[in-house]
Amino acid sequence: MPEEQKLSQSLCKSKLYVKKFGGTSVGSIERIEALAERIAKAYQAGERQVIVCSAMAGETNRLIALGGQVTAYGDPREMDMLISTGEQISIALMAMALQKRGIPARSLTGDQVQIHTNSQFGRAAIEQVDTDYLEQLLEQGIIPVVAGFQGRNPNGDVTTLGRGGSDTTAVALAAALSADECQIFTDVTGVFTTDPNLEPAAKRLDSISFSSMFEMARLGAKVLHPDSVAYAEKYRVPLRVLSSFEDGEGTLICFDGQYHQAGKVVGIAVSADLAMVSFDELDESSDRLAVLFKRLAEMGIETDLLSKTRSSASTVSFTIAQSWLERVLAELDSVSQTLNIGPVYFEQDLVRVSLVGNNNLAKTEVAAKVFDVLGKHGIHVKLVSSSAIKLALVIPQNHLRSAVCALHHAFELNEL
Amino acid sequence: MPEEQKLSQSLCKSKLYVKKFGGTSVGSIERIEALAERIAKAYQAGERQVIVCSAMAGETNRLIALGGQVTAYGDPREMDMLISTGEQISIALMAMALQKRGIPARSLTGDQVQIHTNSQFGRAAIEQVDTDYLEQLLEQGIIPVVAGFQGRNPNGDVTTLGRGGSDTTAVALAAALSADECQIFTDVTGVFTTDPNLEPAAKRLDSISFSSMFEMARLGAKVLHPDSVAYAEKYRVPLRVLSSFEDGEGTLICFDGQYHQAGKVVGIAVSADLAMVSFDELDESSDRLAVLFKRLAEMGIETDLLSKTRSSASTVSFTIAQSWLERVLAELDSVSQTLNIGPVYFEQDLVRVSLVGNNNLAKTEVAAKVFDVLGKHGIHVKLVSSSAIKLALVIPQNHLRSAVCALHHAFELNEL
Repeated sequence: MPEEQKLSQSLCKSKLYVKKFGGTSVGSIERIEALAERIAKAYQAGERQVIVCSAMAGETNRLIALGGQVTAYGDPREMDMLISTGEQISIALMAMALQKRGIPARSLTGDQVQIHTNSQFGRAAIEQVDTDYLEQLLEQGIIPVVAGFQGRNPNGDVTTLGRGGSDTTAVALAAALSADECQIFTDVTGVFTTDPNLEPAAKRLDSISFSSMFEMARLGAKVLHPDSVAYAEKYRVPLRVLSSFEDGEGTLICFDGQYHQAGKVVGIAVSADLAMVSFDELDESSDRLAVLFKRLAEMGIETDLLSKTRSSASTVSFTIAQSWLERVLAELDSVSQTLNIGPVYFEQDLVRVSLVGNNNLAKTEVAAKVFDVLGKHGIHVKLVSSSAIKLALVIPQNHLRSAVCALHHAFELNEL
Repeated sequence: MPEEQKLSQSLCKSKLYVKKFGGTSVGSIERIEALAERIAKAYQAGERQVIVCSAMAGETNRLIALGGQVTAYGDPREMDMLISTGEQISIALMAMALQKRGIPARSLTGDQVQIHTNSQFGRAAIEQVDTDYLEQLLEQGIIPVVAGFQGRNPNGDVTTLGRGGSDTTAVALAAALSADECQIFTDVTGVFTTDPNLEPAAKRLDSISFSSMFEMARLGAKVLHPDSVAYAEKYRVPLRVLSSFEDGEGTLICFDGQYHQAGKVVGIAVSADLAMVSFDELDESSDRLAVLFKRLAEMGIETDLLSKTRSSASTVSFTIAQSWLERVLAELDSVSQTLNIGPVYFEQDLVRVSLVGNNNLAKTEVAAKVFDVLGKHGIHVKLVSSSAIKLALVIPQNHLRSAVCALHHAFELNEL
């Protein structure tokens, strides 16, 4: 970098962006080269950048499979030692691709940055990020290229982060560096009103509030992990979702502002391959239910949309991922005596369709419209659950597309 | 480990071995499992062990190729960041394979151990090894599984070691820990009098001196890298070469002792695919030659068996790897004017056969016997070079097998 440019950069403190590239984005040398080209252009335009890379698509699974060949239950510390190499490969390749273009860059592992985590191997939480080294590099006009998804515990062991992985790394770095924006580059051009594969008229949102995005992510929108959205909100880091492959403004995730009209439905999230389990409680001493759900949690099974209704008896229903059905039914069978429950019913091939709104979704109105629209299409709703900003419905999987299209149209999402 | 066993181990300070396993030895999950089984047995027998692993065979080349797809001249720091992941994968898998057998083990990167090196990326030299962490683990009955071939420089960057790589790591750890022996596990059962592929009657040596082993390694025996032999000699670490795949005593490399009869030929090392270049100096101001060899060194070309003879003119001959011939001839062509040399001659398809002895090889007797034996077989010797413990001959490649067999027999190596 010429001296004058360096000087002018440090004087006017140009904007600082933390940019995270996921596994598909760095999935081949060609893609790494293309990203390096974009990063180089932004550098030449005076942007200050910190790059965070995931492992190349497929690499983490390859490593997990390698470990799985040794043992089905690998020690979590050793699994982290193993799979953290995936990101280390990406950052070295990205740094080389930048250097080839004359852009000073340096790859850094989570340990080198120092990203301090707790010792929960495989799902560690970031506790603190040292910014000294990163700031020193930025000051020298060197782009830090940081391995996502990893850190070090107080003992110096390699840890990998829990769900949200590399996104969380990017948000944590952006927070620690007070970056202007944390940009998550993906294989889509932003956050959409619903899955464009289901509804071709789906529209990209220019902006969405943290709370709506959190619900969208939690309820099935795969573009961001809910934990990283929550993390960004907590540390007040503006997040932007953009495409790795084409130019565009993407979607800005920020605090509720003038452009987020309260009470409106902003998107429809979808989660497929669910099963629903129901049973009647014959004796309602409710701590017996607590025992059941504690047991399911211990088995690593997440239940969702739990509801309890009462007519002649008290009926408990909940949804689970279909792949867990067999284990849940077996468990219910083994505890049915102690729990004192009636026969267990289940349904398979269900999906959850969730209408997510801004704060204070007008639920009664929304519910009325939903039942009206779905009723007209002959779609039977199995279960409903609502919160301040979402209304979630469980319906048969074969009605997914027609339900999403009808709701997308009814709530005028086509017209954004 | 039961308390009593732990106690007895720490009381009687059982023997400590540093065991290094190369790329072929850890080349598949099956092989890692088989090694883990052997390490577990030794553990149960009370041995204290530190394990050093190379990358799985093929992995380092895969990573180098990946980097090569980005740039032909990758920044050495980034190349080290990239290829050091190979060993990190092996150690995690090995630690898991041990744990599966109930043996406490912990994988450690060069950085975690702390293996301090200088900053010569790609060919770093070890400067110091901290033993605190390793000793603490050994004290607790935990087997440290250390990544070979890597360390960290004062800046905290990942470095990879120069030639000898993981062997050097093992020797350095053995030296720092004052281990009883450093054991190098390979795909052969020890050091042989010559390559058994050339001479089926080749015998495994029970023991060989450091200096003879160093020459054998330098002159073509691939079982050990000369640098790690020199390193072991310097730090007085007894080295043993053994097979990863079968039981046996292998070959002990140690200081000259009673069982190393002085002056005797102990082995025949072979190095193939050489070319020889010769020219006459028309003007003997010898610093001109210095210019030439400095230039070749800059080109990364290693010359060997340089000899200078004088009859009518002064003739300079040297050997090089055949693959370098074209570049050397081009260079000689471009400097022939300034050097003032006569026409350049070259010969291809040559091999070097080196007789290595213990200290004070009786060179005249040996040379006499060599010329007698080779003469009887009609083998023409192109070049001869000797030192205190070796006599090296350059001969045509098509006579390699008959020369090695004849010499092996003549020096009674069959009868060890």
